[in-house]
Amino acid sequence: MSKISFKNDYSEGAHPYILEQLGKTNLEQQSGYGDDEYSEHAKALIQEKTGNLDAKIYLTSGGTQANLLVISHLLRPYESVISANTGHIAVHETGAIEATGHKVNLVNSINGKIDLQEIRETVISHNDEHMVKPAMVYISNATELGSVYTKAELTELSDFCRQNNLLLFMDGARLGAALTSAENDLTLPEIAQLVDVFYIGGTKNGALLGEAIVFIKKGLDAGFKYHLKQKGALLAKGRILGIQVLSLFQKDLWLQLAQHSNTVAEKIAEAFKVRGFNFFIPPQSNQIFPILPNALVEKLHEKFDFYTWYKVDENHSAIRIVTSWATKEENVEKLIECISNR
Amino acid sequence: MSKISFKNDYSEGAHPYILEQLGKTNLEQQSGYGDDEYSEHAKALIQEKTGNLDAKIYLTSGGTQANLLVISHLLRPYESVISANTGHIAVHETGAIEATGHKVNLVNSINGKIDLQEIRETVISHNDEHMVKPAMVYISNATELGSVYTKAELTELSDFCRQNNLLLFMDGARLGAALTSAENDLTLPEIAQLVDVFYIGGTKNGALLGEAIVFIKKGLDAGFKYHLKQKGALLAKGRILGIQVLSLFQKDLWLQLAQHSNTVAEKIAEAFKVRGFNFFIPPQSNQIFPILPNALVEKLHEKFDFYTWYKVDENHSAIRIVTSWATKEENVEKLIECISNR
Amino acid sequence: MSKISFKNDYSEGAHPYILEQLGKTNLEQQSGYGDDEYSEHAKALIQEKTGNLDAKIYLTSGGTQANLLVISHLLRPYESVISANTGHIAVHETGAIEATGHKVNLVNSINGKIDLQEIRETVISHNDEHMVKPAMVYISNATELGSVYTKAELTELSDFCRQNNLLLFMDGARLGAALTSAENDLTLPEIAQLVDVFYIGGTKNGALLGEAIVFIKKGLDAGFKYHLKQKGALLAKGRILGIQVLSLFQKDLWLQLAQHSNTVAEKIAEAFKVRGFNFFIPPQSNQIFPILPNALVEKLHEKFDFYTWYKVDENHSAIRIVTSWATKEENVEKLIECISNR
Amino acid sequence: MSKISFKNDYSEGAHPYILEQLGKTNLEQQSGYGDDEYSEHAKALIQEKTGNLDAKIYLTSGGTQANLLVISHLLRPYESVISANTGHIAVHETGAIEATGHKVNLVNSINGKIDLQEIRETVISHNDEHMVKPAMVYISNATELGSVYTKAELTELSDFCRQNNLLLFMDGARLGAALTSAENDLTLPEIAQLVDVFYIGGTKNGALLGEAIVFIKKGLDAGFKYHLKQKGALLAKGRILGIQVLSLFQKDLWLQLAQHSNTVAEKIAEAFKVRGFNFFIPPQSNQIFPILPNALVEKLHEKFDFYTWYKVDENHSAIRIVTSWATKEENVEKLIECISNR
Repeated sequence: MSKISFKNDYSEGAHPYILEQLGKTNLEQQSGYGDDEYSEHAKALIQEKTGNLDAKIYLTSGGTQANLLVISHLLRPYESVISANTGHIAVHETGAIEATGHKVNLVNSINGKIDLQEIRETVISHNDEHMVKPAMVYISNATELGSVYTKAELTELSDFCRQNNLLLFMDGARLGAALTSAENDLTLPEIAQLVDVFYIGGTKNGALLGEAIVFIKKGLDAGFKYHLKQKGALLAKGRILGIQVLSLFQKDLWLQLAQHSNTVAEKIAEAFKVRGFNFFIPPQSNQIFPILPNALVEKLHEKFDFYTWYKVDENHSAIRIVTSWATKEENVEKLIECISNR
Repeated sequence: MSKISFKNDYSEGAHPYILEQLGKTNLEQQSGYGDDEYSEHAKALIQEKTGNLDAKIYLTSGGTQANLLVISHLLRPYESVISANTGHIAVHETGAIEATGHKVNLVNSINGKIDLQEIRETVISHNDEHMVKPAMVYISNATELGSVYTKAELTELSDFCRQNNLLLFMDGARLGAALTSAENDLTLPEIAQLVDVFYIGGTKNGALLGEAIVFIKKGLDAGFKYHLKQKGALLAKGRILGIQVLSLFQKDLWLQLAQHSNTVAEKIAEAFKVRGFNFFIPPQSNQIFPILPNALVEKLHEKFDFYTWYKVDENHSAIRIVTSWATKEENVEKLIECISNR
Repeated sequence: MSKISFKNDYSEGAHPYILEQLGKTNLEQQSGYGDDEYSEHAKALIQEKTGNLDAKIYLTSGGTQANLLVISHLLRPYESVISANTGHIAVHETGAIEATGHKVNLVNSINGKIDLQEIRETVISHNDEHMVKPAMVYISNATELGSVYTKAELTELSDFCRQNNLLLFMDGARLGAALTSAENDLTLPEIAQLVDVFYIGGTKNGALLGEAIVFIKKGLDAGFKYHLKQKGALLAKGRILGIQVLSLFQKDLWLQLAQHSNTVAEKIAEAFKVRGFNFFIPPQSNQIFPILPNALVEKLHEKFDFYTWYKVDENHSAIRIVTSWATKEENVEKLIECISNR
Repeated sequence: MSKISFKNDYSEGAHPYILEQLGKTNLEQQSGYGDDEYSEHAKALIQEKTGNLDAKIYLTSGGTQANLLVISHLLRPYESVISANTGHIAVHETGAIEATGHKVNLVNSINGKIDLQEIRETVISHNDEHMVKPAMVYISNATELGSVYTKAELTELSDFCRQNNLLLFMDGARLGAALTSAENDLTLPEIAQLVDVFYIGGTKNGALLGEAIVFIKKGLDAGFKYHLKQKGALLAKGRILGIQVLSLFQKDLWLQLAQHSNTVAEKIAEAFKVRGFNFFIPPQSNQIFPILPNALVEKLHEKFDFYTWYKVDENHSAIRIVTSWATKEENVEKLIECISNR
């Protein structure tokens, strides 16, 4: 790949500290399948950081896996999960949830965030055994469009779910980016109080692979380790998840890395704004969606890799620029320069 | 873990060369989801080593995942897979195959190897739509009991499968150990000619994680990448599989590592033999099952970690000793010494 | 139930001729599981009526069962079916399709009929392995809202499907009502040429139970009988399906029964029209949806049973009136009288 | 079918009283999907007959359907059901249980009855998350080989299950034949106290179709109606199940019918005994398995239809003779005559 890529936040390997830790511990003998000391240590640290020492934590290798594991574990066969129509499980997981037997009820999203009013209507309309029984609400934070939930929004959603006997599950593949967004007013312990289960993503935030699933509501995790094994998600060398997640949480490295990706994204967004471009979605984290003239899109494509997201009109398209913990300042400068000299 | 472990072949991390390669390539930007250059290179190398340039290769993270992916991909909903009752899919995958909707027809094993006569009977007795339709035979090589298939055995099995329209799938979680066994008379290209699909294990042979699924029979892999994604098996940073598998196949590192594990296992087995102990299964690769007096088992447990496999009689048990690419000679010596000084 | 019901078309038992045939043949010994003479005879008659002697026909007990059997039989695990958002499989089958592992891609409907333009967009946007692969289009005729497909519409849809490698499946739970609708210009053989698979409903058209699944496209039914058994759909006394379906097709009884239900529905619709009421959907078959003042709805509810379908505004609601083969003229008169004397 | 059939107990239609009741109620309007008055009445009667007014009862159309519904409803995804290797779910349901995602753990049977000692061993050996978690024991009464459980046997099994947190499920496709067997010492209320869930078969005992699932253990049925709908098991005209089951339970018709089938089977068995033939399994209900010289088997096949069950040696085979509620005395005489005149 000779072009500079702003396609996603998983184009590079791991933060050097993580590789260093993998190297340091490499020849130690450790128990397999997640019973190693590093996994235990990582879990204890996450319990502490979420402010919930009773939280039950499981490490797994990727986001789609985390989603299908949690959802199929928590739903009875005839129960469904409600998702925004922009939700990752609704669009970009090749029917992974349906493959475990469950319907995803779609509701509209507002800037990538789920529309509570439509959840209400879905719950009301699903009132007998001829329809699935909605039993969970799935949200992503940051969302698939880079937006983040406010404390007020999440609280309102949480209240609704508890009143209506719906589990609330937060996909945190980019939770670091959410928590370090300029728009964020939530803390990790607050999130842990408002949702029933969530996961914290490592893969898109500096790890080779690794997501930490956190069950908050008591008893929800009963039997979950069987589930991990059955779905092929229990790595024999579980230590590699433990070591990576531990490394990310020590000294809050995951938040530092996420902060970097947000900071450079903001810098790029600012450059677009200064030149008078609008955005498909207001930029809030490390994914931004400027609307550009097609000529500029083509020009950018000569040097940079990114997705064209949406055709706005004959002459304009929204593109997606994603930054990561590893995005180099020099590449940001090159991109900004390319926007300016047009 | 202060004891020396002979519990399994995944207690340590990766071979240093693999870690080195991960480090070297770490900051390169690569395409995600298995479209990186290293995965491409690894696949080309495996095609070459199997002597089949048309083979289709997919990298995934673990053995249970590989098994459930291949089997659920290839069977129609009402079709079943025949396995030895000692087979990994039959016993130790928490019903992973059944969770994808398919029955596993059990047949007896002879020293861990599937009994062809019983396969014949199963095929004959399953003759109408009130029973599942057997459509695949699953074998492991090396088997779960450390034995290996001979060329004559695999040829006979392959012939039977082809005559009876059964796919033949070889679980090669420990294929390296099989190919470097003193009892082995098969080559990798021969295996590739006799089976329809197999996988080559990296996790139990020096990688952090990584198995290479090889589809031989033409067309079998159509749509398989959708399947990988749907089952949560498509890693965002697929490069880490590519780099590791590539490292293992360059200079046949995987065979060198497997040879080491077999050599030390043989040394240990010899020590048991010399002291007059018998074996539950004749030792052929890196898993050996000596039958010991319970007093010796207890004594060994003071310093070493291993599984007690089977209670032979009131006073004797078969234990399982597993060696790996990383087993240190000094630990082998300590074990042998402990057996001798009794 | 003391009220007169216009709730659905399955409130009564079977047409007397069917009961008579069940009685006549009752003590004969017949083969089980669909291998009886009556099932064979029924299938031959359907082949003849559809003008396709190679069609493969299977009898099953209900509509949801027919839908889940056909769809799960024809799709690979990662493939999806496209349905109107008003489709029975999308709304009223408790996630039966998802329970077999498949996503239902929703598109908008126009008066209950699927929007071809949205199918086009769905096919275009689902272009890689991160999304399901649409492989089938599901339509109902008559639709869930009583509308029927014209020859031009079905031809256009069929052409699109064939060009895009999509199977076309017609749910004919109310196919009789469609074919005898005043708006219909399709024949059964024409339908059999335009779709790949469909079913003809008996349960809602005079049978106690019984639907005939018709596979048109060659080879599609391979292994289907295994599927029937596996899903619990193969009745031991399959003769009761055979006898009923045969009875319905002899002398085209099914069309006579459907004609009756349409005729009385039209009479009722006419009464609503005469009194100046509009319809939520233009009436075309045995389900009609007049929009009435709430006061009239309440008044009707005193004597009649029916569903209130949709709240149009503060003062008006659309109700659903369904007629059947067994709807008595005297009850139609009572309903019309009740509308008039307001 | 010109031969007289002793192949199974579902070759004829329904007992005339049932047909009569279907006819009598045919034109009444009744609620759909099992909410009709007859289903309610039938359920109340079964509650009374089982001596458990809190039992929850659901009617469905066939045995495989009942089995897959109950088992998939009660097990978590990683849980398994233990069955005798001769169990219907293990052999003759085309992997219906596995198709819902669950493993069937096989244990040996003794004359068709499950071996409790092997259940014990299975429970002990399944002790971690690498294996499925057995959570239910499935038995059939009468068994697939015609044998019946004694009160002592069922009590011991029930005690074991309760001590080990296993649900006990009895497949009663032929429960009538069991309860009227000369070997039986159990009452229906006793069975209802010893198991957690069972079903009473109508299809093989005089109904066109219809099985009554009875949940004893409190709360087990929560959500079951959603499950019925999702699996295609909720008949629109549920009345036909209600009317049939009600008819069978009024005046204990089901027991009278079962008694007839046992009585004629005993008569046939006696004839075989008198002529010196042995049995594959001691005859206990309406399925008997005499061991005959092949020449006699051939001779019988000229006039009668039945299955050859097992090749005992070169010259002898066990055949299966099944009688039903409808077996005519004259046909029994013909069979006995044919055995005698050899």
